[in-house]
Amino acid sequence: MQTDWLDVIRWDASGLCPVIAQDWQNGSILMQAFINREALELAVRENRAIYWSRSRKNIWRKGEASGHVQILHAVYLDCDGDSVIYKVEQLGGIACHTGRASCYFQKLEDGKWQTSSEVLKEPREIYTAVAKD
Amino acid sequence: MQTDWLDVIRWDASGLCPVIAQDWQNGSILMQAFINREALELAVRENRAIYWSRSRKNIWRKGEASGHVQILHAVYLDCDGDSVIYKVEQLGGIACHTGRASCYFQKLEDGKWQTSSEVLKEPREIYTAVAKD
Repeated sequence: MQTDWLDVIRWDASGLCPVIAQDWQNGSILMQAFINREALELAVRENRAIYWSRSRKNIWRKGEASGHVQILHAVYLDCDGDSVIYKVEQLGGIACHTGRASCYFQKLEDGKWQTSSEVLKEPREIYTAVAKD
Repeated sequence: MQTDWLDVIRWDASGLCPVIAQDWQNGSILMQAFINREALELAVRENRAIYWSRSRKNIWRKGEASGHVQILHAVYLDCDGDSVIYKVEQLGGIACHTGRASCYFQKLEDGKWQTSSEVLKEPREIYTAVAKD
């Protein structure tokens, strides 16, 4: 597989690039994480969202623990080559480890962060393994 | 103005946090940039998208040079407190310095980045000043 396209990306000093997971149909932003070369190449090859976990320092196949796999439908790069979008189909309809559809459930209102969306499934029902994803 | 809400954000070692500008109506992702405490506080106060320019090392009021101001309609924070969304109304319908609606116009197709959206206005017609934004 030709990988010239990976060289177009302006990886940062740590070899990472931020990536936004966006619902491929309704445009909702589900989460933001990071990729390295390997994660992005694997994601395209396996047609699923794969990230680099900065905390665990390893390749992170979204949904491994939860079953909430993100099927990868398209990849976009921005004008500066330093930000990527994964257009994904969120299996189970839950992207967040809190059991919500999206990780962005805190909305600023009157100088406070207010919870703006509901838990669809309790985390203890989602995770059978130790690691969250 | 109370600023406890700014302390909830997990600013990185450089005092920055990534922020995604998303069209408040159609959900399109327009750009991704960074904020520091000052940029976010000013954005909320002035009801417009304000960023921290890492290259110029200063506060960046989107639209200063181009007129393509982003009116700020809402601010969201993710579960981990380290990623923000600005829900914006993009004046002029152009967020990208290339004259496109969104910065994400490169789509991966068959191992190559293909231009997937058109230039709405030539940059030379947009910018009268030296700095792009």
